[in-house]
Amino acid sequence: MHKIILDCDPGHDDAIAILLAAGNPMIDLLAITTVAGNQTIEKVTRNALSVCAIAGIEVPVARGADRPLVEPQRVAGDIHGASGLDGPVLPAPAFVLDERHAVTLLVDTVMAHEPGEITLVATGPLTNIALAMLTEPAIVDRVKRVVVMGGAYTRGNTTPAAEFNIAVDPEAAEAVFRGSWDVTMVGLDLTHQALATTELHERVRAIGGPVSRFVLDVWEFFGQTYRSVYGFEHPPIHDACCVAAVIDPTVFTTARADVRVELRGQWTRGMTVVDFADVLGMHHGTGRDYRADVAVQLDWGRFADLVVDAITRLGE
Amino acid sequence: MHKIILDCDPGHDDAIAILLAAGNPMIDLLAITTVAGNQTIEKVTRNALSVCAIAGIEVPVARGADRPLVEPQRVAGDIHGASGLDGPVLPAPAFVLDERHAVTLLVDTVMAHEPGEITLVATGPLTNIALAMLTEPAIVDRVKRVVVMGGAYTRGNTTPAAEFNIAVDPEAAEAVFRGSWDVTMVGLDLTHQALATTELHERVRAIGGPVSRFVLDVWEFFGQTYRSVYGFEHPPIHDACCVAAVIDPTVFTTARADVRVELRGQWTRGMTVVDFADVLGMHHGTGRDYRADVAVQLDWGRFADLVVDAITRLGE
Amino acid sequence: MHKIILDCDPGHDDAIAILLAAGNPMIDLLAITTVAGNQTIEKVTRNALSVCAIAGIEVPVARGADRPLVEPQRVAGDIHGASGLDGPVLPAPAFVLDERHAVTLLVDTVMAHEPGEITLVATGPLTNIALAMLTEPAIVDRVKRVVVMGGAYTRGNTTPAAEFNIAVDPEAAEAVFRGSWDVTMVGLDLTHQALATTELHERVRAIGGPVSRFVLDVWEFFGQTYRSVYGFEHPPIHDACCVAAVIDPTVFTTARADVRVELRGQWTRGMTVVDFADVLGMHHGTGRDYRADVAVQLDWGRFADLVVDAITRLGE
Amino acid sequence: MHKIILDCDPGHDDAIAILLAAGNPMIDLLAITTVAGNQTIEKVTRNALSVCAIAGIEVPVARGADRPLVEPQRVAGDIHGASGLDGPVLPAPAFVLDERHAVTLLVDTVMAHEPGEITLVATGPLTNIALAMLTEPAIVDRVKRVVVMGGAYTRGNTTPAAEFNIAVDPEAAEAVFRGSWDVTMVGLDLTHQALATTELHERVRAIGGPVSRFVLDVWEFFGQTYRSVYGFEHPPIHDACCVAAVIDPTVFTTARADVRVELRGQWTRGMTVVDFADVLGMHHGTGRDYRADVAVQLDWGRFADLVVDAITRLGE
Repeated sequence: MHKIILDCDPGHDDAIAILLAAGNPMIDLLAITTVAGNQTIEKVTRNALSVCAIAGIEVPVARGADRPLVEPQRVAGDIHGASGLDGPVLPAPAFVLDERHAVTLLVDTVMAHEPGEITLVATGPLTNIALAMLTEPAIVDRVKRVVVMGGAYTRGNTTPAAEFNIAVDPEAAEAVFRGSWDVTMVGLDLTHQALATTELHERVRAIGGPVSRFVLDVWEFFGQTYRSVYGFEHPPIHDACCVAAVIDPTVFTTARADVRVELRGQWTRGMTVVDFADVLGMHHGTGRDYRADVAVQLDWGRFADLVVDAITRLGE
Repeated sequence: MHKIILDCDPGHDDAIAILLAAGNPMIDLLAITTVAGNQTIEKVTRNALSVCAIAGIEVPVARGADRPLVEPQRVAGDIHGASGLDGPVLPAPAFVLDERHAVTLLVDTVMAHEPGEITLVATGPLTNIALAMLTEPAIVDRVKRVVVMGGAYTRGNTTPAAEFNIAVDPEAAEAVFRGSWDVTMVGLDLTHQALATTELHERVRAIGGPVSRFVLDVWEFFGQTYRSVYGFEHPPIHDACCVAAVIDPTVFTTARADVRVELRGQWTRGMTVVDFADVLGMHHGTGRDYRADVAVQLDWGRFADLVVDAITRLGE
Repeated sequence: MHKIILDCDPGHDDAIAILLAAGNPMIDLLAITTVAGNQTIEKVTRNALSVCAIAGIEVPVARGADRPLVEPQRVAGDIHGASGLDGPVLPAPAFVLDERHAVTLLVDTVMAHEPGEITLVATGPLTNIALAMLTEPAIVDRVKRVVVMGGAYTRGNTTPAAEFNIAVDPEAAEAVFRGSWDVTMVGLDLTHQALATTELHERVRAIGGPVSRFVLDVWEFFGQTYRSVYGFEHPPIHDACCVAAVIDPTVFTTARADVRVELRGQWTRGMTVVDFADVLGMHHGTGRDYRADVAVQLDWGRFADLVVDAITRLGE
Repeated sequence: MHKIILDCDPGHDDAIAILLAAGNPMIDLLAITTVAGNQTIEKVTRNALSVCAIAGIEVPVARGADRPLVEPQRVAGDIHGASGLDGPVLPAPAFVLDERHAVTLLVDTVMAHEPGEITLVATGPLTNIALAMLTEPAIVDRVKRVVVMGGAYTRGNTTPAAEFNIAVDPEAAEAVFRGSWDVTMVGLDLTHQALATTELHERVRAIGGPVSRFVLDVWEFFGQTYRSVYGFEHPPIHDACCVAAVIDPTVFTTARADVRVELRGQWTRGMTVVDFADVLGMHHGTGRDYRADVAVQLDWGRFADLVVDAITRLGE
């Protein structure tokens, strides 16, 4: 069993990540923490509770940072709609929020477990994670690893250079990447391979029931925005890739790299500058700190199986 | 009575700020919080406790951030020595630290008081203040104002452009200056007028006793480093100016300005770019947000009287 | 006939570009101008003359800028060797340099022709082109278009973000991209498709003669450095792609984009930030100036035929 | 006799600089070159010719760069008016422009003289000077020194951080400051001491004649804009300080410094970051290249005498 805390900003693909974490028997979902990102902290927190209600998930949910460390707040209404999870009908929450701040819950939970026990899965801006490590640096050695959905080593989606989660709070991202823990970066290069194809739609439709219905509605809306905004044929299920990697590390290949977040560029702020350890010609490009694992190649079949399996189990 | 929390990194001039806050009858010093800056968090926290021991001060002291939000940590050993408070003999602490993190103490204390009751006096890097406002944004409306020792509107001291407290954690400073609270910036332009002159030495010497002795030793060491490093004849008592301004707003004049912290410059990172509201010709220079009060002209006599008075009272 | 001036820094792939320009019957090569880049201005100018000697090319050759506009000079000795054209035996020049500065020759030649007659093909840092447009802005309206080998819309080769020609003189590149002329950007995304494969080697070997021998020696050395430094199986013939596009615009597809050179980033300086006009989701990323044609997909067969044809003709 | 070329963008204070150069017997004014700055190149060039007409000056005048190296063009209409020299009546030019580009004239003239003979006095943006050194690097060793009106070591005038001449073309300024020639920076810190006081007005009025009349009209208009825009009581005669320093080096004191132009800052672009060699505490701020002489303290009486003397001679 892999103990994880899921720090997220649901968000269509965050919703699938929650379902995968809750539905997979290898994952022990200790808590969900929320962070402003795809929408305001009020909306994404409400969405997290609604997703729990839909799938009968019962874990502590704590509300976190309502804005980035330095940047003014920015949301992704063009992609996730006014609610942050437009499309499906969202039920009322089935339980109340944990009364702690997400940062306090994160720190308390990590410090209450043994070193190496907990994996942080972060699928929104990295504000909460950065605040947790800044107020309790001891969590850095205690966490097993941090799996981050964010960044890209080729092209961004919020600007030509920057991916949304990193662009929204570049300082937090840089703090997290500079931390002396193991970080896995699951960027757009990987997640754009994790498409909710027609085949996957059909397999989920075949499951039936309210969770299946919810997932299809999520993909329906997300598919529309990805088609109109980015010209994608099918929507990517970004965030679920991080949970999948905790369940089965072979779901994607990785390469060692030094990852720096560009904080100063005029056109590139929030870009993850990825210097791969095995390309000698660029080693002078950054200060050589090849500690991150960057996701490269997805095994789509394996990933799809995990998604279908989790939805099936949650529907039972 | 002005209720204040003093967030500091003692530090020679921080020590005088603590004594002024504790010794002046108009100040109700609710707590001291420490932040890495002039030296490591261990050293400045120990120094804070020692200063309390010297002067019989009994207030909660809580240890805060051990590093800036994003920047690697940097200390000012060339100015404050290996201990952060070289020169005087430092007694053992007379009491133990508050067990809360400085950020928690800050948030708890502010939220436990009425809106407009508490003034934050920040004489180190602004890491703790930034973390407090990020984890509990409600403090911004609740605090009366924030008086910051930091920055400059002409020249810096750590680089030609940047003053130490801001240079050490520019992101935290920018977060604090962007907050919708009243901020008073007490920069080098002001504090370099607050010199521990021969006259002031003599007046303090005349007081006698251990607190007087301690202050003279502080100035002796600080005077040496300011002479050799900056060519000053007398050392500036930077941080005490902030406390003095809470006691008596007329101790210096101020001007309205928009203050932006330069985060991106190659040679200017950490500079406070101060656009005064009354100089029309530069209004296009920044985005026009004239909310800060920037200290301009010190009434040295008044300031010196406050310092002498506090040391006298603490010695009684 | 397409009248071109070839501004280059030979350089292995520049040498092939010169041969293609001289050997193709559709190209009227008016002049060759040199610029410091792959090696110092002395070396690349000497190399240009040597390539002319090898292939019996007789056109004015003028020496240009010996350093970038602002950046300190940087060469690519790891890729092109100590001479800038290591590998083949280089004959002595067969004629002397034009006595004009490259910038003067560029301006004089463009102004002496009708508007729309001359295409500038720039395969080195853009210093000369920028200096020409700065000292005689009228050339901007008079030139037909500028075809630039430089930049990338995914990843760089000098740093993870920046390609060599742009990284060496980012200010010149930005000046050229901001000019109101038609610019075609032929970046690494395209030129990494233009590989000197085994098949191409064989076809060139079959031609025989000294030009064929020279080309094979160029690819031999360039193949070695590309293998050891970048892990490529075959070396890319970057610069020749620009000349090929003048001969036959269908040799690659292009997409409209706004191209900005990042001048300020800490890790991204010299990156070409390419915002494609047809990806709505990123339009807020840059200031919307979709005037550049960016090369996307190479027709390798057509390209290879052009190269083989030119070498064949030059050998006759 | 000091041979100088005056590169300028008249401009009210440029006009006084021209008069001082032409009227002082120690100066051999070889040529005037113009550069876009206070107004467009057309306007400042016309103004230069008009000033020559007013004072009977006959030297080659050549028109230079119409825009900065990289920045979009910016003028100072709020300070110098729509014509660039609003206020006085401007006569028609008495002779035609030199047909060479200013950069060509600069290079030709410097190369035609012995090493160490010519001083460049630059009182506008440094575009021409940068282009000259980029197209003919040999001028750098041949020029005696470059005296630049530009920058500040405390505060700017175009932004809180940057002075106009440097802010308009920061890349050109950085290129000039990085050149291996002797550069004297005459910044706002100095020129704001060079005020056209009531006393100076009276002395010039007493001279009488058309040149005196012109100078008074120049100061009248300039005084108004400086009063309304910057709150100055009297207008500064910035540019004339550079010419004065060539005539008499004791007209101001200087200090050795490393001067870097900030090219990347968000709020500080175009700032001259001045690291004085004798302030140890900031030596880590820049890369230590203490080659510039920065003007510090003006001898106003001596300066005023030079101005009065030149106007008197020109009126004779």
